Amino acid sequence: MRAALAAAQAAAEQGEVPVGAAIVRQGTVIATAANAPRALHDPTAHAEMLAIRAAAALLGRDRLEDCDLWVTLEPCAMCAGAIAHARIARLYYGASDPKGGAVEHGPRLFGQPTCHHRPEVYPGIGEAEAGAVLRAFFRARR
Amino acid sequence: MRAALAAAQAAAEQGEVPVGAAIVRQGTVIATAANAPRALHDPTAHAEMLAIRAAAALLGRDRLEDCDLWVTLEPCAMCAGAIAHARIARLYYGASDPKGGAVEHGPRLFGQPTCHHRPEVYPGIGEAEAGAVLRAFFRARR
Repeated sequence: MRAALAAAQAAAEQGEVPVGAAIVRQGTVIATAANAPRALHDPTAHAEMLAIRAAAALLGRDRLEDCDLWVTLEPCAMCAGAIAHARIARLYYGASDPKGGAVEHGPRLFGQPTCHHRPEVYPGIGEAEAGAVLRAFFRARR
Repeated sequence: MRAALAAAQAAAEQGEVPVGAAIVRQGTVIATAANAPRALHDPTAHAEMLAIRAAAALLGRDRLEDCDLWVTLEPCAMCAGAIAHARIARLYYGASDPKGGAVEHGPRLFGQPTCHHRPEVYPGIGEAEAGAVLRAFFRARR
């Protein structure tokens, strides 16, 4: 989660909503990414998506059954869908997102019968720090 | 929808589940894409995602409020989430997908209170042809 938090801080410095993600395989961080839809001109460029895509490219396959995803914020529906498609083994996330989250809020995607893979989910990891980065960002923009 | 169907056929010829998508702006097709997660080693590389990313890159922005998305199959949760993030104006799709769709099935994403943009939705466009391409593909692989 340290790598994900560092990526979140980097996103904030670029004026992006500060969310960071990391993919861990066999105890090693193999990809990290910061949320960057504005900089990349890509509405799909959430931190989780970029980290999953980077890890899949690195490993040369489209499934990451042996990988875990760490992210500072509860994933949205798009990212939760990608996590399922990628067959991520374990999902660790920091702050809850009642407004846009899709794991414990809204569609609760991994509980849907149309969701074909459900990772183990560990919420609240590094929550205080992840939430503080987000709150500082939104406070500064008000 | 002709462009999307042609992309679906191209996906089938590459051994990918045959789904195709096109982005239309001001009456012009500005991006088309075929489903390609295996070829690209990218679990997020559904036709809709690739078409949205290509259109956003072309226009140099992360929102596509003035664009419509045409796709041969009902979008999944990941793609429906991306459609909302991209602020797509109108969604036209072909075949329904009771197993993985997230528009009229499963989470019915655009009806969730955590979904911040809801496109106009037109299902069943070119449904017969889109469904035939999918059925032929799965029949050949059995």
